[in-house]
Amino acid sequence: MSENKIPYKIYLTEDEMPKKWYNMRADMKNKPAPLLNPGTGQPLTAEELSPIFCEELVAQELDDTTPFIDIPAEIRDFYKMFRPSPLVRAYCLEEKLGTPAKIYYKFEGNNTSGSHKLNSAIAQAYYAKKQGLKGVTTETGAGQWGTALSMACSYFDLDCKVFMVKVSYEQKPFRREVMRTYGASVVPSPSETTEIGKKILQDHPGTTGSLGCAISEAVEVATKNEGYRYVLGSVLNQVLLHQSVIGLETKAALDKYGIKPDVIIGCAGGGSNLGGLIAPFMGEKLRGEADYQIIAIEPASCPSFTRGTYAYDFCDTGMICPLAKMYTLGSGFIPSANHAGGLRFHGMSSTLSQLYDDGLMEARSVEQTSVFEAAEQFARVEGILPAPESSHAIRAAIDEALKCKETGEEKTIVFGLTGTGYFDLVAYESFHNGTMTDYIPTDEEIAASIAKLPKIG
Amino acid sequence: MSENKIPYKIYLTEDEMPKKWYNMRADMKNKPAPLLNPGTGQPLTAEELSPIFCEELVAQELDDTTPFIDIPAEIRDFYKMFRPSPLVRAYCLEEKLGTPAKIYYKFEGNNTSGSHKLNSAIAQAYYAKKQGLKGVTTETGAGQWGTALSMACSYFDLDCKVFMVKVSYEQKPFRREVMRTYGASVVPSPSETTEIGKKILQDHPGTTGSLGCAISEAVEVATKNEGYRYVLGSVLNQVLLHQSVIGLETKAALDKYGIKPDVIIGCAGGGSNLGGLIAPFMGEKLRGEADYQIIAIEPASCPSFTRGTYAYDFCDTGMICPLAKMYTLGSGFIPSANHAGGLRFHGMSSTLSQLYDDGLMEARSVEQTSVFEAAEQFARVEGILPAPESSHAIRAAIDEALKCKETGEEKTIVFGLTGTGYFDLVAYESFHNGTMTDYIPTDEEIAASIAKLPKIG
Repeated sequence: MSENKIPYKIYLTEDEMPKKWYNMRADMKNKPAPLLNPGTGQPLTAEELSPIFCEELVAQELDDTTPFIDIPAEIRDFYKMFRPSPLVRAYCLEEKLGTPAKIYYKFEGNNTSGSHKLNSAIAQAYYAKKQGLKGVTTETGAGQWGTALSMACSYFDLDCKVFMVKVSYEQKPFRREVMRTYGASVVPSPSETTEIGKKILQDHPGTTGSLGCAISEAVEVATKNEGYRYVLGSVLNQVLLHQSVIGLETKAALDKYGIKPDVIIGCAGGGSNLGGLIAPFMGEKLRGEADYQIIAIEPASCPSFTRGTYAYDFCDTGMICPLAKMYTLGSGFIPSANHAGGLRFHGMSSTLSQLYDDGLMEARSVEQTSVFEAAEQFARVEGILPAPESSHAIRAAIDEALKCKETGEEKTIVFGLTGTGYFDLVAYESFHNGTMTDYIPTDEEIAASIAKLPKIG
Repeated sequence: MSENKIPYKIYLTEDEMPKKWYNMRADMKNKPAPLLNPGTGQPLTAEELSPIFCEELVAQELDDTTPFIDIPAEIRDFYKMFRPSPLVRAYCLEEKLGTPAKIYYKFEGNNTSGSHKLNSAIAQAYYAKKQGLKGVTTETGAGQWGTALSMACSYFDLDCKVFMVKVSYEQKPFRREVMRTYGASVVPSPSETTEIGKKILQDHPGTTGSLGCAISEAVEVATKNEGYRYVLGSVLNQVLLHQSVIGLETKAALDKYGIKPDVIIGCAGGGSNLGGLIAPFMGEKLRGEADYQIIAIEPASCPSFTRGTYAYDFCDTGMICPLAKMYTLGSGFIPSANHAGGLRFHGMSSTLSQLYDDGLMEARSVEQTSVFEAAEQFARVEGILPAPESSHAIRAAIDEALKCKETGEEKTIVFGLTGTGYFDLVAYESFHNGTMTDYIPTDEEIAASIAKLPKIG
């Protein structure tokens, strides 16, 4: 393999790192539907959003016309601590699979949060600091976002309160300790510390929680405490904007070697990684400059794209957040506790939902045992122990590469390796022990949850 | 900070990666003392060593005249999966400390084993495979070496048996699961699976183990089973040779920007990281081409350099291994169980011992609570959660930088950041909870252990 011209890892120089984020919405003919005020059913104004989010983030959230937005120098400096991230040519995986496909992955796990989440966390912390706030609140599922945010807050000396989905809090105690290293306070959700948490516990005693519950609690605390705002690690337009740094770097690295991908694959929970990874490629597609096959991969146990409906819904279980139009399983949907692979959100980014509805991207769902099989196979040949979330994309990339083996096609496949699985060893252990099972919700379960969608529009 | 000419991370290209390892011994006037046969007291021959080690590794172990040894292409290909590793300019730490010193660290943690250990693991697995062996046995302390070796064995499809120091096996169960992902079998040491393990358990019931015990067990299994050899992650000359890739990359990266370090700092357990990091710098020093201040940092609870004696001793507790002349606390020395920071080996690399004895390097010891203070401070500003082992070097680098703040000297400090602390959260938790304590062995304890040294030469 030594003679290959393309290196194992393509690194940009610091000078080549993006200086602007790219806002896909600017190039979309059908804009994502606006957030609605759940009381009035009318589009939310900047004034209505500013008790929840920082001012500049509100502006970014609502801006669907500016294609490029400057990345402030302070954020670019922080990025340099863990970026540019490598675009890796998976030579060893290709050889193992015996595929003529060329596989690349953008690896976002080389930082202590272990994932791409830090890209948006530092941006959101920066704007909170700039506005003179005391601190921020948030939710976290697998703990990657909470860790990322605690790192960002520590850097800018902001208070950080994290509501952690109870099942993760219990399964991943070490994440808590990392957050503590960075000075954050972490509460298992649902908790008795909020009104909405108390209500959820009363209605669903023994619940293992969901991102939706944790969001409700974090928003409640942010809006009830002076000098605090809420920050979110996925779903929102602003988050996809920040995460576009992933795709911009990926495209710059590919361009350096004249490589044009055929297929781009990303795992999708709320859509932050996928939306970031595909941004510049989707931009070209929207402008008619190029075409790519773009595939979202979601867990079969929480299949928003593939089995959800496109409608206005709450982003949170407590129904206190704005309404977003998105592919959703209903804000009351709580994925099975046996599902270890993250990506547990009931809905999906409004931007990605619109792109999917417009036929500009595809979606597939995969089951978790096959995801962990792919994870282990990948770890053994590529050396990196992947996060379960990322492994959804690995599963699909391997499947695509094996199809190429059958057809003989030399497709170029790019996928997002969002992070590492160092804090997911409990799930790996259940996979090794053979106690991991798959769970696919029934049509009745999904229909019952969707039946409770708010009546809007 | 954006205007700095030196980037945050200096990466070599894959073409610039070393193609040869550097063997410090070739330039040493006083060669390290040879390994002795404990039965005869005579230097061990290649024939005597080959039942324990692979043939090519025996040759490397005994070769003290060849300065450069080719890195086989297969190993260089594997290196490309996680190397070159970045040389990071610690801009944020410098700013936080307010020091005029310039701090660089060579970060070896961006791989699943979480440390530099993979550099030698892949080399040792390669030579075992080349020799047609079935598998290898080894010991592991914190689990970094065992993880690295299991990754390397998985890559070359070799069987891998790991004896893990019991205290780490219990405190770090997740490492076990990583090794399992890579197909290794892991046994807590001392165990009932070997003769020497049974004897140690009989003599010291309730022992939490030591690297010395685990080495004895691994060697016993390797020598009693056909097609197996023993591999070791530190101490040996061959390991320092492989680890020279760290120092060679560091020097190449510094040379690219015309930087000459004043102080080079590395943590030292058995010496693998330190010996690798300093190799080319020490080479220049040995050849009279340049001078550097080189400092080994060891834990106050296991202070081989600073409180040990320079004499022939066993490398293992069971006294079945060859005798090595080294700075040692005696092979019966078992560091306090409360010591969380790795670096628990009673002895030290023969090569480094000779260099230290010749006054070519210094050594200091640091206490573990101050090490974790440095670790947390570093994590908060540099983003990386460091391994406790690595944090010994961070402690010393911070102390040196603070001295520069007092004196106004603009020294250039380079230290080795050997790995990440993702599997050390139990220790971080005890630090956060205030339950972490320091333990310094008494003079009597050390004297009693040293009194039992074998009578040689």
